[in-house]
Amino acid sequence: MPDKMKAVVKIKPELGAVLQDYNIPQPKDDEVLIKIKATSICGTDVHIYRWDSWSDNRIGAKALPQVMGHETAGEIVELGKAVKGLKIGDYVSLETHIPDPADLQTKLGQMHIGEHMQIVGVDRDGTFAEYIAAPASVCWTNDKSIPPEIACVQEPLGNATYAVLGEDNDIAGKSMVIIGDGPIALFAVGVARACGVTKIIIDGQSDFNLEIAKKMGADYILRNTDDNHNQRVEFVKDHTNGFGADIVLDMAGAPSGLDEGFQMLRKGGRFSAFGVLSGADYKIDYNNYLVFKGAQVHGINGRKMYDTWYRVGNLLSSGRLDIRPVITHTMMLEDFAEAFDKLMALPRRASKIVLFIDKGEFEKAKTRIK
Amino acid sequence: MPDKMKAVVKIKPELGAVLQDYNIPQPKDDEVLIKIKATSICGTDVHIYRWDSWSDNRIGAKALPQVMGHETAGEIVELGKAVKGLKIGDYVSLETHIPDPADLQTKLGQMHIGEHMQIVGVDRDGTFAEYIAAPASVCWTNDKSIPPEIACVQEPLGNATYAVLGEDNDIAGKSMVIIGDGPIALFAVGVARACGVTKIIIDGQSDFNLEIAKKMGADYILRNTDDNHNQRVEFVKDHTNGFGADIVLDMAGAPSGLDEGFQMLRKGGRFSAFGVLSGADYKIDYNNYLVFKGAQVHGINGRKMYDTWYRVGNLLSSGRLDIRPVITHTMMLEDFAEAFDKLMALPRRASKIVLFIDKGEFEKAKTRIK
Amino acid sequence: MPDKMKAVVKIKPELGAVLQDYNIPQPKDDEVLIKIKATSICGTDVHIYRWDSWSDNRIGAKALPQVMGHETAGEIVELGKAVKGLKIGDYVSLETHIPDPADLQTKLGQMHIGEHMQIVGVDRDGTFAEYIAAPASVCWTNDKSIPPEIACVQEPLGNATYAVLGEDNDIAGKSMVIIGDGPIALFAVGVARACGVTKIIIDGQSDFNLEIAKKMGADYILRNTDDNHNQRVEFVKDHTNGFGADIVLDMAGAPSGLDEGFQMLRKGGRFSAFGVLSGADYKIDYNNYLVFKGAQVHGINGRKMYDTWYRVGNLLSSGRLDIRPVITHTMMLEDFAEAFDKLMALPRRASKIVLFIDKGEFEKAKTRIK
Amino acid sequence: MPDKMKAVVKIKPELGAVLQDYNIPQPKDDEVLIKIKATSICGTDVHIYRWDSWSDNRIGAKALPQVMGHETAGEIVELGKAVKGLKIGDYVSLETHIPDPADLQTKLGQMHIGEHMQIVGVDRDGTFAEYIAAPASVCWTNDKSIPPEIACVQEPLGNATYAVLGEDNDIAGKSMVIIGDGPIALFAVGVARACGVTKIIIDGQSDFNLEIAKKMGADYILRNTDDNHNQRVEFVKDHTNGFGADIVLDMAGAPSGLDEGFQMLRKGGRFSAFGVLSGADYKIDYNNYLVFKGAQVHGINGRKMYDTWYRVGNLLSSGRLDIRPVITHTMMLEDFAEAFDKLMALPRRASKIVLFIDKGEFEKAKTRIK
Repeated sequence: MPDKMKAVVKIKPELGAVLQDYNIPQPKDDEVLIKIKATSICGTDVHIYRWDSWSDNRIGAKALPQVMGHETAGEIVELGKAVKGLKIGDYVSLETHIPDPADLQTKLGQMHIGEHMQIVGVDRDGTFAEYIAAPASVCWTNDKSIPPEIACVQEPLGNATYAVLGEDNDIAGKSMVIIGDGPIALFAVGVARACGVTKIIIDGQSDFNLEIAKKMGADYILRNTDDNHNQRVEFVKDHTNGFGADIVLDMAGAPSGLDEGFQMLRKGGRFSAFGVLSGADYKIDYNNYLVFKGAQVHGINGRKMYDTWYRVGNLLSSGRLDIRPVITHTMMLEDFAEAFDKLMALPRRASKIVLFIDKGEFEKAKTRIK
Repeated sequence: MPDKMKAVVKIKPELGAVLQDYNIPQPKDDEVLIKIKATSICGTDVHIYRWDSWSDNRIGAKALPQVMGHETAGEIVELGKAVKGLKIGDYVSLETHIPDPADLQTKLGQMHIGEHMQIVGVDRDGTFAEYIAAPASVCWTNDKSIPPEIACVQEPLGNATYAVLGEDNDIAGKSMVIIGDGPIALFAVGVARACGVTKIIIDGQSDFNLEIAKKMGADYILRNTDDNHNQRVEFVKDHTNGFGADIVLDMAGAPSGLDEGFQMLRKGGRFSAFGVLSGADYKIDYNNYLVFKGAQVHGINGRKMYDTWYRVGNLLSSGRLDIRPVITHTMMLEDFAEAFDKLMALPRRASKIVLFIDKGEFEKAKTRIK
Repeated sequence: MPDKMKAVVKIKPELGAVLQDYNIPQPKDDEVLIKIKATSICGTDVHIYRWDSWSDNRIGAKALPQVMGHETAGEIVELGKAVKGLKIGDYVSLETHIPDPADLQTKLGQMHIGEHMQIVGVDRDGTFAEYIAAPASVCWTNDKSIPPEIACVQEPLGNATYAVLGEDNDIAGKSMVIIGDGPIALFAVGVARACGVTKIIIDGQSDFNLEIAKKMGADYILRNTDDNHNQRVEFVKDHTNGFGADIVLDMAGAPSGLDEGFQMLRKGGRFSAFGVLSGADYKIDYNNYLVFKGAQVHGINGRKMYDTWYRVGNLLSSGRLDIRPVITHTMMLEDFAEAFDKLMALPRRASKIVLFIDKGEFEKAKTRIK
Repeated sequence: MPDKMKAVVKIKPELGAVLQDYNIPQPKDDEVLIKIKATSICGTDVHIYRWDSWSDNRIGAKALPQVMGHETAGEIVELGKAVKGLKIGDYVSLETHIPDPADLQTKLGQMHIGEHMQIVGVDRDGTFAEYIAAPASVCWTNDKSIPPEIACVQEPLGNATYAVLGEDNDIAGKSMVIIGDGPIALFAVGVARACGVTKIIIDGQSDFNLEIAKKMGADYILRNTDDNHNQRVEFVKDHTNGFGADIVLDMAGAPSGLDEGFQMLRKGGRFSAFGVLSGADYKIDYNNYLVFKGAQVHGINGRKMYDTWYRVGNLLSSGRLDIRPVITHTMMLEDFAEAFDKLMALPRRASKIVLFIDKGEFEKAKTRIK
């Protein structure tokens, strides 16, 4: 084992990152060392790459240098001494939320939302590298039938799955509106389709993304323009006997989208709050959107450990869910800057991008993705 | 049967109401006629008595004259021809939300929140009268052990019970903060205490009401003053190992109280949204209160038909719950104006007021209430 | 309106039934009169046709003559005076369980399992006729896109859907074993497939039916022979990482199948008990199947009113679920005897049979079914 | 630290055990060493003490010598190197079910029922000793307000709490029958009373225990005699408007009790299956008890980790639940033989017995227990 590896490292609190040599981490007693096969880029990574105000507040310049990234699939190559239930050679993906065993949430089966949890690639070195050391407690063993470029995407796919299923898993035979058309919204369409949602309406802004939504199984596409808010709400009412949708997912995090979502929701319906607002507070019509509506709002952060992972893995390995339409690009890790450029470009021409460390893996993936 | 009865009628769109003769209603085929024994005054009745902007929008001058009131207990004296499952002499209370059988919500067991439901005393004549005609579908048969002055209060007690239990009934051994100290908040304290909430913290403004909260079983009283917001939030954290409360109920409907409630709620906790805002929208810290918190918000409107009624009736008839401390006054129907004056006076000196039609019933109730 | 209609009537407590003239029923105040378009044959009808010991105990000779049948789709042609929420011309199917409004279960949203409910075609005249009078409370309005030969089958399809979803709707991304291969088991395969069950294993005895199961989306077919019990259990373990299936549905009602099902279920899994035993009690390995296994057993009788109907209707109208492979025959009502012969023949050569009253409807259905 | 301790050790596969010197265990990397303050005797310990056929099959002679016991409270005195979230001096109790991290159940939040879990005092050395080494993953930190003689009993109290709450926590305002009168049944009465069950009926055989049940809050006592089965069932019907109880807990594990329990359960009710049958299979009236009844059976084994512990700790520290009436004896560890004699004697004169290692702790406990 060499002591250096290639890694995409955030070194300065400004736009960009550099590919450089970095020490291969030593796994602690309760950790494993993973040789990474594929790692994908999340919206959070784009925030960090840009180094916006969120990054500056949440991570801070003092934490740098730090390896970026958190979505991954790889192979365990070394085990800490106290690790149980895993072995060398296991093919794993990483849950990004590292629970604190002392948190109440950890004890109550809500470890994904623990008060003191750490986040990979935010609170510690990430996955845009050849290796990562991570606690055994956040390793999920993949079915070998799932290729690396799919397995690494299970983390955001888990967000989508948790948002779709909510806390109650009550979706079969129901109607759903998805606000937003980013990769997680597109995954959500696929999950909803695979899991028996019988009317899937997506409401987005990007023609490129909405085209993918169709491939993922959306029944109706609402193309959001500045002046058709009312028509979009009416469309949903018209397609739900005037009541509104049983379930609404917000995956956009914009005040106008939230208004739209609550107006599209039927009385007694469920609203999954996943999208994060970028700016000011949201002025909510509290009485009509929550109280009189008898709405159930499920705040969705992360994905359930490991209830969601179990379902996601099964959806993929069974072939019930094919997320390849959302993976618009596969690239080599060294081309990360080009990848970020694609993700920041408008209008949208990229959705999910997967990076490979090894050229051979990269070539094989291309044959599978198309 | 005479054809006229005494009733408290809203006749003009202005402050006040009058006690006058009114036609005894004829029950339709699917309705029953109820001789009222006791009827209590709700905050909604106060709004209508004042004829505030909500009343003007929701009811409107054109609907007048209309009998006020909706909380009641009485005896069935006449049955419509198509009524099943009820009989003359049955001792009943009324659910205020009259479901529309064609509503999706009605079909899905959410009839309390139906799109086209009618509300007694708002959309049709109410209960401040000797008789009311009401659909058989909203009659709940009371256990005879529950006296009328308690039985009539089951409707708001049902609000409290539904808010405490939420959609998941998951309260045993958990901590709860109740924001507000009106009658329903005070009922909520009692229900929480009777049903195994192990830490009950009430956060209110009225010394009079908070004294009742103590009698109902609150463990901690937070006396809300303008400048102790942070201390109140800290108090809750200090009493929950730093995590915040498992459950928060808002029963006040004030933006500052909502902020307080969300800040007091632990990550992954449940928030019951019951209180109605009187004014402008609520500017919510959406990311921190909902998304990152993984909060579950349950909009509470009405009470479950008849799941909540079943529990409420059992809590009362078993003696597990004693709500008499909240019933601060019993009066005769003809003294309604005095009753409304008491309810509108500040500082608070009244909580729940029950009105009687019959002097004998009134005298008996006084011996039971204290 | 004439006063006589054609009906298949059970007249004697012995094998068989007769097609004869019968009085067209008069709807009561809370009932509607339905002109039947299609009616399908249930296993219960076969019991009654045979007049086995169950029929003799449950219905009894004194109840005869009685029109058979309960699965139906038709059009409302007359409304009782107190009926609300329905109108002449509505295209409806019938829920078979007629709730008693005074039952506790009715009040608690479990009206499908009410203590004193009546069953159509068992406790009163049924649907193998030109008309039926039925309470408005058991009419479900169909989407017009669902043809009669499918709409009439929603009642047993509702059994299947309720059994698949259980009380918790928790099936997405999970594994399921279905014991039995009758029509409801075959429907269950389709529902499970449409709603995101990721591994569907059916365990049955009829080659004919198991061939249909494949078309409905089963992943694995276990052909039950007398001597391969252990291999079947091992197969399920081998395909679930040794743990057993997340969910098992018994739709066969045989002691050996129940043993098999409980052995195939993983610890902490859910078991839907739907099949009815024909003979003696079941000698259950109570400790290992229930207690130590931490199993959740959901007794399934009927289907939720109307939660299940809503989902079923949506699954059909959306095209997510195609049940036509299970409908092996469409016939005219007058050929009922031939239909029953087919259903009683061994080896199986028929699954679900739909009967039509009108020749024109019958001909149109044939073009849709194949 | 010395290297020997006092321990009650099972040394031979026959009745009895011996108090002897035993090596103080060394905690592994993921374990802690606990100095035990109080340890209580479970029915399982009585089985092992007797060395009945269950003990011989489940533990086996080859596993001996082995320290007995599993219910405990003590203080952490040493930490393995990889332990997080605990510290020296922490006051803890032990969960008895040691999860295997590779089990599917562990990953899905059902670690109490894991396929390969180990049980303290059954699969490894137990708590009838001065020290025990145990995985950090099964340590529950107690509130210091809970004295050791109560804290050690949380493990069986957790069984009771889980059985009362079931999988759905849906008990507030409902009726419950508890079959059996052993310590866990008596705890269940107390939990049900503290958590809002409004009608608690216990059905048992021991006058001594049923007297305790009254103190714990039972509303009705059914004294089981051989010939009053029907009267007991009728009593429950009579006290539930003829429907039967909403919830039944079996904590006796006898076929006649199971029959009784299912007959007392209303249609659509919940049955917690906790008691373990000692002998042959149970011949269940499957159709009537499960299918037609629409019953929900929850197999209860262990208690939820750590949802149940959280509630139990809160019920105790808040004073809502006082279990002291069930703790009939406190004794020194060295008097274990006398304790077992008391527990095996008939008629019953003992319920829960707590053993102390330290004389001072023992004396203090006596002042608290009475």
